[in-house]
Amino acid sequence: MRPLDIHKLLQGKYKITIPLEVTEENLKYLYTPGVAEVALECAKEPSNAFIYTRRKHVIAVVSDGSAVLGLGNIGPYGALPVMEGKAMLFKEFGNLDAFPVCLGTQNTEEIISIVKALEPSFGGINLEDISAPRCFEILKHLDSETSIPVFHDDQQGTAVVVLAGLQNALKLAGKRISDVKIVVNGIGAAGYNITKLLLEYGAKNVYPCDVYGLLNESTALHEYHLEISRLTNPKNISATLKECLKDADVFIGVSKGNLLTGEDIKQMAKNPVIFALANPTPEIMPDTAYENGAFIVATGRSDFPNQVNNLLAFPGIMRAAVEKQRKITHTILLKAAEIISKTVEPSRYMILPKATDRRLHEMLYKGLIEIFD
Amino acid sequence: MRPLDIHKLLQGKYKITIPLEVTEENLKYLYTPGVAEVALECAKEPSNAFIYTRRKHVIAVVSDGSAVLGLGNIGPYGALPVMEGKAMLFKEFGNLDAFPVCLGTQNTEEIISIVKALEPSFGGINLEDISAPRCFEILKHLDSETSIPVFHDDQQGTAVVVLAGLQNALKLAGKRISDVKIVVNGIGAAGYNITKLLLEYGAKNVYPCDVYGLLNESTALHEYHLEISRLTNPKNISATLKECLKDADVFIGVSKGNLLTGEDIKQMAKNPVIFALANPTPEIMPDTAYENGAFIVATGRSDFPNQVNNLLAFPGIMRAAVEKQRKITHTILLKAAEIISKTVEPSRYMILPKATDRRLHEMLYKGLIEIFD
Repeated sequence: MRPLDIHKLLQGKYKITIPLEVTEENLKYLYTPGVAEVALECAKEPSNAFIYTRRKHVIAVVSDGSAVLGLGNIGPYGALPVMEGKAMLFKEFGNLDAFPVCLGTQNTEEIISIVKALEPSFGGINLEDISAPRCFEILKHLDSETSIPVFHDDQQGTAVVVLAGLQNALKLAGKRISDVKIVVNGIGAAGYNITKLLLEYGAKNVYPCDVYGLLNESTALHEYHLEISRLTNPKNISATLKECLKDADVFIGVSKGNLLTGEDIKQMAKNPVIFALANPTPEIMPDTAYENGAFIVATGRSDFPNQVNNLLAFPGIMRAAVEKQRKITHTILLKAAEIISKTVEPSRYMILPKATDRRLHEMLYKGLIEIFD
Repeated sequence: MRPLDIHKLLQGKYKITIPLEVTEENLKYLYTPGVAEVALECAKEPSNAFIYTRRKHVIAVVSDGSAVLGLGNIGPYGALPVMEGKAMLFKEFGNLDAFPVCLGTQNTEEIISIVKALEPSFGGINLEDISAPRCFEILKHLDSETSIPVFHDDQQGTAVVVLAGLQNALKLAGKRISDVKIVVNGIGAAGYNITKLLLEYGAKNVYPCDVYGLLNESTALHEYHLEISRLTNPKNISATLKECLKDADVFIGVSKGNLLTGEDIKQMAKNPVIFALANPTPEIMPDTAYENGAFIVATGRSDFPNQVNNLLAFPGIMRAAVEKQRKITHTILLKAAEIISKTVEPSRYMILPKATDRRLHEMLYKGLIEIFD
C-alpha cells in the first residue's frame, strides 16, 4: 500500500474523543449550569486551567509550512500531514495530546502574535518546520513572552541528539570535547543550535560554515550568523569549508547531499567522526566515508546504522517540561543529551539508541523530571 | 460530587488519541519518508487535505472569553472549561472532533486574522461566547474571508431554535407568522439574529427593543442596531418596551431576569407566547406568566418545560456543513428550524424536542445534507 492510500484510509493520524458519554444528568456538571463554577475558578487564577481542563496534557505542533522535511516551502496544507505525524509521535512516545496547528501566514510577527494568543488552550508549544532565520526570532519571542514551555524541534531537538551521539562517538574515539576541532556545515535552524550547544558543552574549536564558507563578518547572512561568528571566530578569519576540514576531528553536516568526497575525509585528523545529516542524501555516503578513514559515520536515515533522529529527544523533553511547566533552557538540553547518550553501551555502529525504544523515552522523561524537581 | 471535583478527576473533557500504534515499520508510511508524498499532494491542492488528513472531521470552538455563559467577560482561561464542554457536545451529538481554542486577545481585527490563519488545520469554525457587537464583525469577516463553514452559535444557533419553537407555538395558538406582533428584547448576539431570521421567515411586525426601548435612529447603540431599526422601524418611532408589549402576540426575551410583570403579560394580545430566555433568571417566571394569561412559556432552563436549548441545532448544522464544506446561509438556518420543529408533535408544554435526543440530531443532519446535495 502506498502512503497516500494509507492516509486516505486513516482519515487523519489523530482523533479527538471524549472521556465519557454525555447524558442529561452529567451535562449539569460538565456543562451548564455546573461549569460556571469551574469557569470562575479558572478566570480567577489561570493556572487553575491546568487542574480543571485538558490544558496540562495538550501541546500545539505549530508550523507555517516554510521548511517542511526536505521539501522546502510547501505551505500550511502541505505541512498538515507532517504535523499530524509529529503529533502522533508526541502521543505515542511522550504521552502528550498534540494538536497540529498549520498557519496560513509566514509573516514572522504575525506568527509570534498568533501563537501568543493561543497560549490559553495549550500547556506547551512545539514549533516545527519553520525556515531559518525566522525561526530564531519566533522561538526567542515565544520563549520569553509566554509562560509555557516552547520548543523548536528542528533547532533544539536536533542539537540535543547530535550532542548525545557525539558524546558517545568521542568516547569511542578516545577524544575530549575540549580538544577536538569540529566543523559544522549549514548554519540554519539545526546548525545554529548545534554550534551553541557544543560551545555550552565545552567545545573550544568549532568552525561553523555556511554557503560562503567559514562564518565571519563578511560571510554572515544575518544577525544570527553574526552572533555565531563572533562566538567562534573572533579574529574574523576567512576559510572555505574544505580548508576548515583540514585536521578536523568531527564534521557535522546539516546542509545538503553529496558535498564531501573521500579526499575531504582523508584531509581530516585521525579517526574522524562524520555526522552527515542531510536528508535524504547525506553530505557523504557512509561507505565512501568509511573507505577513506572515517571512524564513525552517522546519518539522518533509518536504513544506515547510527541514525540521528530527533524522535530520541522531543517526546521526553516536552513531556517533562509540560508536566512541570518549565522553560527549556540550555541546561535542560545538555542534560537531555547526557541522558540519551547514557541509554546505550556505545559501539561504532550504535552510538545512539533506537528511537522507537520506549525505555529510552521513559528514562529521558524521568531524568528531566528529577532536574526540574 | 461538585463540578470542580468532577473536572479535576477528568482532567479535561476531551482527549487526543491516535488511531494505531506507532511501529518502526508503519513510521515509514505515516511519517518520514512516506509522508512526503502526501505532503506534496496537499501542497498542490489544499482540498486534498480533506482526503489525507483529519481536517474534514475537525472544528475549532473559538472564544475570547468576552461573554461567557451569563458570567460576562471572564477571559480565555475562564472560557476554557466551557469551550471544552461545547467541544464535548459537538463530538457526542455531531460526531465532530472539536478543539477548544481560547484566545488571549479581545481585539476584533486580531481575532479575525488569527482565526483566518488557523483555517488550514480545520474543517469548520464555531465561534462562541464573544460579546456583541464585536461578534457580528467577526462572523461577517470570517464567513466571507475563509472557505470553510463558520458558525456563531450564540447568534445563529439561538435564532434557529427560537424560530423552531415559535413555529410550533404559533401552530398551537392558531396564529400565522405574517400576522403576529413580535417583541424581541435584547438586541445582542442572539436578538440581532433572531430578528433577522424572523423577518426572513415572514414576520411583518417585529419590535426589537434594547436598553433604551424600541430601536430607532436615536436608541441604536451601533451600526448593527441601526441596521435592525431600519429593517423594522422605517418610520423611526419611539416607544418603551412596555409600550411595545401592548397587543403583542409574542415576546422573545434574550435580555435579563425579572424584567416583566404579570401586568405586562395582561397587556399583550390573547394567548400570548412568551420566550423568557434570560439565564439563569428568566425575564418572567413561567408560573407568573401563565397566571396572567400566557398560552405558552419557554425559557432557557432545563428545569422548566419548553427549554430553548442551542444544543438542538449546532451539532447537526455543523456536522452537515463541515461534511459538505458549505457555508451556513439564512436558507440553511430556516431549513434547520423547520426540521427541528417537525421532530415533535407539539403541545403547550413541549414545543421543542429534548436536546439529548439522538434521533433529532440525526434528522437535522440528514435533512440538511439533502439540502446541500
